[in-house]
Amino acid sequence: MLIRNIDDTPTKPVEMDGVSGATMAVMVGRADGAPRFAMRHFTIEPGGHSPRHSHDYEHEVFVVSGCGEVLLDGAYRSIRAGDVVYVPPDEEHQFRASADEPLRFLCMVPVERDCGEPVPGS
Amino acid sequence: MLIRNIDDTPTKPVEMDGVSGATMAVMVGRADGAPRFAMRHFTIEPGGHSPRHSHDYEHEVFVVSGCGEVLLDGAYRSIRAGDVVYVPPDEEHQFRASADEPLRFLCMVPVERDCGEPVPGS
Repeated sequence: MLIRNIDDTPTKPVEMDGVSGATMAVMVGRADGAPRFAMRHFTIEPGGHSPRHSHDYEHEVFVVSGCGEVLLDGAYRSIRAGDVVYVPPDEEHQFRASADEPLRFLCMVPVERDCGEPVPGS
Repeated sequence: MLIRNIDDTPTKPVEMDGVSGATMAVMVGRADGAPRFAMRHFTIEPGGHSPRHSHDYEHEVFVVSGCGEVLLDGAYRSIRAGDVVYVPPDEEHQFRASADEPLRFLCMVPVERDCGEPVPGS
């Protein structure tokens, strides 16, 4: 059993090439015994972004607050609170916050790649 | 690629024994090609509840708005917007809305049970 609030769970800086102004907290993950997928909470500061990259596993994202853009299918599209974004495996993507407010979102990933290796940040 | 807002995606009544005043929309699921887990959006009307039950797969839940209670470890605990709840496989659980406002939450499930059968509502 686990109940945690995103406002009470400190986030840590995401230290990764291509990232600017992003912090993250694992809300439910492998350390909690989650057998198949993990929930992470990201905050991207105004003007910041996640890396522009792709990988062999999917994302399921929920925008909690703020607004910004997501790169998908080669174009940046606006996102806002309440939006759900599905990023299929191997699709290039990037999340950017707007210039004037932080973008907060949940990002779900599997805990293991198909080969059985742990997914980073799960 | 998929972007859908929870406010623009109609929910349908959950017709299941033990449910009162609950509607649901699959935000990302098997029909969208999600390979491993699904995201559903539930609204429970004031005084309503999900079934008191258990099953062989986990839930990862995020409370979007409203407040209510969740049964976990045999006791009802308060939940509110921003809370993340992890319900391990085989643990009895139930979500109840408070008497005066709807409870809205996301509930993530795997798309398949360990035996390979599809998870209901995924």
